[in-house]
Amino acid sequence: MRIDLNADLGESFGPWVMGHDDEMLALVTSANVACGGHAGDPETMFATLKRAAELGVTVGAHPGYADREGFGRRVIPMAPGEVTRMVTAQIGALVGMAGLAGTKVAYVKPHGALANLAGRDEEVAEAIADAVASFDPALAILAISGTKLEQVAKARRMAVYSEVFADRAYQSDGQLVPRGTPGAVLHDAGEAADRLVGFLETGRMPVLGGGDVALEAHSICVHGDNPAAVETARNIRDALSAKGITLAPFLA
Amino acid sequence: MRIDLNADLGESFGPWVMGHDDEMLALVTSANVACGGHAGDPETMFATLKRAAELGVTVGAHPGYADREGFGRRVIPMAPGEVTRMVTAQIGALVGMAGLAGTKVAYVKPHGALANLAGRDEEVAEAIADAVASFDPALAILAISGTKLEQVAKARRMAVYSEVFADRAYQSDGQLVPRGTPGAVLHDAGEAADRLVGFLETGRMPVLGGGDVALEAHSICVHGDNPAAVETARNIRDALSAKGITLAPFLA
Amino acid sequence: MRIDLNADLGESFGPWVMGHDDEMLALVTSANVACGGHAGDPETMFATLKRAAELGVTVGAHPGYADREGFGRRVIPMAPGEVTRMVTAQIGALVGMAGLAGTKVAYVKPHGALANLAGRDEEVAEAIADAVASFDPALAILAISGTKLEQVAKARRMAVYSEVFADRAYQSDGQLVPRGTPGAVLHDAGEAADRLVGFLETGRMPVLGGGDVALEAHSICVHGDNPAAVETARNIRDALSAKGITLAPFLA
Amino acid sequence: MRIDLNADLGESFGPWVMGHDDEMLALVTSANVACGGHAGDPETMFATLKRAAELGVTVGAHPGYADREGFGRRVIPMAPGEVTRMVTAQIGALVGMAGLAGTKVAYVKPHGALANLAGRDEEVAEAIADAVASFDPALAILAISGTKLEQVAKARRMAVYSEVFADRAYQSDGQLVPRGTPGAVLHDAGEAADRLVGFLETGRMPVLGGGDVALEAHSICVHGDNPAAVETARNIRDALSAKGITLAPFLA
Repeated sequence: MRIDLNADLGESFGPWVMGHDDEMLALVTSANVACGGHAGDPETMFATLKRAAELGVTVGAHPGYADREGFGRRVIPMAPGEVTRMVTAQIGALVGMAGLAGTKVAYVKPHGALANLAGRDEEVAEAIADAVASFDPALAILAISGTKLEQVAKARRMAVYSEVFADRAYQSDGQLVPRGTPGAVLHDAGEAADRLVGFLETGRMPVLGGGDVALEAHSICVHGDNPAAVETARNIRDALSAKGITLAPFLA
Repeated sequence: MRIDLNADLGESFGPWVMGHDDEMLALVTSANVACGGHAGDPETMFATLKRAAELGVTVGAHPGYADREGFGRRVIPMAPGEVTRMVTAQIGALVGMAGLAGTKVAYVKPHGALANLAGRDEEVAEAIADAVASFDPALAILAISGTKLEQVAKARRMAVYSEVFADRAYQSDGQLVPRGTPGAVLHDAGEAADRLVGFLETGRMPVLGGGDVALEAHSICVHGDNPAAVETARNIRDALSAKGITLAPFLA
Repeated sequence: MRIDLNADLGESFGPWVMGHDDEMLALVTSANVACGGHAGDPETMFATLKRAAELGVTVGAHPGYADREGFGRRVIPMAPGEVTRMVTAQIGALVGMAGLAGTKVAYVKPHGALANLAGRDEEVAEAIADAVASFDPALAILAISGTKLEQVAKARRMAVYSEVFADRAYQSDGQLVPRGTPGAVLHDAGEAADRLVGFLETGRMPVLGGGDVALEAHSICVHGDNPAAVETARNIRDALSAKGITLAPFLA
Repeated sequence: MRIDLNADLGESFGPWVMGHDDEMLALVTSANVACGGHAGDPETMFATLKRAAELGVTVGAHPGYADREGFGRRVIPMAPGEVTRMVTAQIGALVGMAGLAGTKVAYVKPHGALANLAGRDEEVAEAIADAVASFDPALAILAISGTKLEQVAKARRMAVYSEVFADRAYQSDGQLVPRGTPGAVLHDAGEAADRLVGFLETGRMPVLGGGDVALEAHSICVHGDNPAAVETARNIRDALSAKGITLAPFLA
């Protein structure tokens, strides 16, 4: 058995540092790198891509609303065509930088409010798929399991991979329990790891309140924006390895 | 005899319109398109590239300091490596967008203060050449005739093309007479056109104060940021055509 | 009879010019000046305030969502307290600049999507009123007639003034006919002026489809963002003057 | 004997945290608060000002070049009048926010490259003094001891206060030893505190290489942008207190 570990990285900006990229790049197998939209800038992109290249970490573009104050967590009203063009420009910037850093961008995973919207709004999902497909037919999409974006990309026969969250509880329809609901976030890394191992063995994810749901996953998303999160990521990695699960990129 | 006409276009931003791109795209054979640095945004890039594609106008990337308030006309202190990375991100954004718009970026011409600095500072010229060469060895550079950037690109055996200005007077060393000096700017389109025809026939450009200087040119740069400039560009185009000079892109 | 004419001005940004501020400042009696949020920057604010001071035009702050690409026409999701703080910072910037330009800010009129939301959402209206009242109890609000913002400011016993639009049709409930509806925008300046004169004489505004509605107004909003709009503003001014209506600021 | 301790605070931006403001606000007696130029935004300004108000910390405006990527550490070419207007807009934003937060801005201290330039360039020093004096004649300037800005403000009979640096070595002309020179930065908090106590007792600051120089100081600048810096600030505060020196704002 094998699985990918991914995290959102390269989210610093100018003099401001976000997260613990060096520690995280040593733990993950795929890095979703911000493209100068919600976060990132040429210096941050380059440094992140270069370090990923050195460590053999696969890189994806992580486009988001070009709203730094809001860190891409607010829905900015945009027509679908505007989303396509914004995402295209961000992918382009990162792809250009990847060449300079000696690596290449293998996939695209949208960020924050854009990802959430693309998960439930077919037009926005199509808008993102348009950007990816037009940019390079070989570019894959990494989508949250069970979302519109995953469905749209599959229907187009694009290369699409699915992710589950290490530390988030699921509902019986395969959707995440919304943040704020009691039990939505798992705080125990051991419990999170056990749950993931069970899921990888059975293809079924436990549901908050009881039961389970079939999910598809090629990658596990972990967070790295605080020291505790890095520790959690490390514990999950160790627990999976201890169970004999190989950690490897979904795309090499 | 043939020559290219180029202009800086796609320099609007959000709700703000700069120049007369529609009129200019019907007159030029090459368009230097802003990349979201000193000007431009995804919507503007796309619209400009799409219109250029429809009209068969060759497009180049026009990167500049990421300083919108200053329109890229102020030198922002940056290390050479920072220049390379800034230019790379901007080229990438435009190249990505060109694919969406059904065209491709054929060359790079730096903008404003970055172009002026690259014209006299070898490190900055090398930094830009690094970005272009790393991005795509097939990408050409359009440099001001007689500048460091032209020399650096030639020394690296890159594809480099040279431009002269339709409306600017020259010195005996081949450099432009600085703006502000009396006679630095030619205001009569007929005179400008006559001068260019003479230059294309002889390879020698008249010098302010008398005499002439040998210059190399594959393109003539015209301005389009005000109605009078559009009229000047049209007059120059007409005057050149009347002399039997073919207007065609230096790169198709 | 007397009435104020107001327009949104100072909406240029860096190298980009918006509208025809010089012509408009000679026509209006009050200028709503952008504060560096949706538009404007220190240079634009200063130049606009200085010209207004020279011409004796009363100035108001015109805060908007800090979303230049969207020109403040998109709702950016923000908590009410965030709106208060954003508006406070923008008013402060303009008030500081007014001192430098030799004038003072007499009122606040929100812009674009923020104004529309404050017109129908009580929490946002309160958030703006909080910013204005906290900044300076002497500062007035200029609100669209019949909106939540007007009601909220009245309930607080703040100095509040109301505006009607010169070129927009009204519904029987006193609200504007939404743009896009046939007849929503009046294109004939003479007709617009006649309608305004009638309204100023009777206090009742004709309703699209027949009938009229009582509205309160201390000011008429005119547009100046294109040459035709300037002409319309001039025609309205001339028509009102011809009817013996004095044009004067609602606040001196 | 009494002295003020000041630090640059409120330098976060959107989702990005800079420094350790909570710890530092408990240590300093004056806070230089970023104004949304090189750092800061309405949320950060408000939170910083509110906490300072709660702790009785005097606040000053800390304007800088509006260059977030460069954190105000790069000289952006600007005419003196442009500097005046940029600084005015930033002071205004912070002053407006201070009212909302229940405090008031007592002084202005420029940041980074702007402060360095104002320290040696009389025109820039005058430009900043113009902004402060025009904004409010009661507003003081906090300048680095021995700089042009201090001289210009004194010549204008403005309220001007001087600062020395806790952890920087001095030259015999009273200027700072440039960063990068061996010995330029003191790393031992005890040594730094001893040096400051001696200076406060004698008015003479030790010079790197031997001897001392007379300096004027109403405040000591400490840094708080990393955990070690917070520790240093605490040690200096404790050492000064232990010597019976009262820590109090230079302006209450």
